[in-house]
Amino acid sequence: MKATVTVELKSGVLDPQGKAIQHSLETLGFSGVEDVRVGKLFRITLSHGSSARAELESQLGQMSEKLLANPIVENYSVQIED
Amino acid sequence: MKATVTVELKSGVLDPQGKAIQHSLETLGFSGVEDVRVGKLFRITLSHGSSARAELESQLGQMSEKLLANPIVENYSVQIED
Repeated sequence: MKATVTVELKSGVLDPQGKAIQHSLETLGFSGVEDVRVGKLFRITLSHGSSARAELESQLGQMSEKLLANPIVENYSVQIED
Repeated sequence: MKATVTVELKSGVLDPQGKAIQHSLETLGFSGVEDVRVGKLFRITLSHGSSARAELESQLGQMSEKLLANPIVENYSVQIED
C-alpha cells in the first residue's frame, strides 16, 4: 500500500527558498511569477495490506507529527492510494 | 492562477534521504515501512490571468527543465489549478 505525505510551510511563515527561486525565475526571463512556495513530498510504501484505512491514516499522521513535519511551522496532509 | 510542480527522483535513482527517513521511522517504532522516497513541491502563483492553459503548461515545463528539476535524475509533473 502506498501513501503520500505532503508537508508545506504554514501560510504566514516566510519561505526564503521560495523567494530565491522566484528571483531566479525572473532572472531567467520568466515574467509574471508572483509567488513561489516550496514543500516536501514523501512517497511511503507500507506493508500493511490488511490494516484498516483509518488506522493507516492515524499511523501516517503520527509519522508526520514526529518526524516528517515540524507542526509549529508546517502543515501536512496524508493521502492513501488504493 | 496557481500551479503546482512536483519533482521526484527517477525510479532507478538511489534516494539516501528517503532511506535515512525509513530507518528513522523504524527506530521510532513504526513497523511495516517498506520504502520512502522524497520529492519536492513548488506552489507557483502566476499573474497570467489571460494566457492560454497550453501556454502556461509550456512555460511551467520550461521552468522545471531550467531550474526546478534536474532532468537527468528527476521527473517532474505540472498541475494547473483554476
